[in-house]
Amino acid sequence: MHANGFQASGVAEITAAAGVPKGSFYNHFVSKEAFGLEVLDRYFGELEELADATLNNRSRPALERLRAFFDALTASLEAGNWVQGCLMGNLSLEVSPSSEAIRSRLSHLFQGWSFQVATCIAEAQATGEIRNRSNAALLADFAVNAWEGAVLRMKVERNSRALDEVKAVLFSAVLA
Amino acid sequence: MHANGFQASGVAEITAAAGVPKGSFYNHFVSKEAFGLEVLDRYFGELEELADATLNNRSRPALERLRAFFDALTASLEAGNWVQGCLMGNLSLEVSPSSEAIRSRLSHLFQGWSFQVATCIAEAQATGEIRNRSNAALLADFAVNAWEGAVLRMKVERNSRALDEVKAVLFSAVLA
Repeated sequence: MHANGFQASGVAEITAAAGVPKGSFYNHFVSKEAFGLEVLDRYFGELEELADATLNNRSRPALERLRAFFDALTASLEAGNWVQGCLMGNLSLEVSPSSEAIRSRLSHLFQGWSFQVATCIAEAQATGEIRNRSNAALLADFAVNAWEGAVLRMKVERNSRALDEVKAVLFSAVLA
Repeated sequence: MHANGFQASGVAEITAAAGVPKGSFYNHFVSKEAFGLEVLDRYFGELEELADATLNNRSRPALERLRAFFDALTASLEAGNWVQGCLMGNLSLEVSPSSEAIRSRLSHLFQGWSFQVATCIAEAQATGEIRNRSNAALLADFAVNAWEGAVLRMKVERNSRALDEVKAVLFSAVLA
């Protein structure tokens, strides 16, 4: 689903990849949409683990944690050969127009992601590491969305350039 | 294709929407991919018309043209009820992993878009309207990609908030 998209991942392919009978799918999920919601929650769980090791690791200065978080995201995207991108971003464009349940879950998960980034930005503003005095929630939304846009461009270019660029500008002009 | 995506738009639906016999499709296009390339070129043509009326309208100061350009993009997204989003962004995430021809065309079109924005940024730097001295091409890539990310978030939220936020931060911290 991450590599091929939601529509292109049929129930037969999903059960074949899992090595279970096709008929068993609906014993576990009432619909492919319900499966998609579960996949999204698992993916966000991995993002939170990554955030806990970097963004929320209070042993380091806040601005350093923000940098470490985006560097860790970069490493995870490199592991996908700059092709898979972000599952949340992929489903946002592909599925949110047609599934209200997935759209609503994505909205909730993006808010959770932005909130964690905002908390760290507010801390860096309080310590003076970030001098930009704009509202931390606004800056966090901006950073998360700009990141998703860079990941989109990365998928088109199949290299890290857009990620390098978004980090360079974020940390020189916005989170500075 | 803009509303439903590439995969979800079958040849039968395309020809039905155009009011022509299904069989005639392949008289005009060697494949659905070739049709997708044509759709992208048309879409980019509309983007260029919008850019000519705003970004490239030399009768106004450069920074004002940049603002007018992103405001005009906002109006076109409002016309799509905050749901359709940007066709280039949509196909970037949905199709670029599976179609090399579409991926390569998107790369080319994004470069063209960034180049026009970079030209206007460089002019605003030269006149002192933008004091940020970073490379204009870098700032343009950043702005275009941040915009695409905001459009992605807009599709999830179904309102203009992410677009308002990206413009607020771009023009207060990056193109400032």
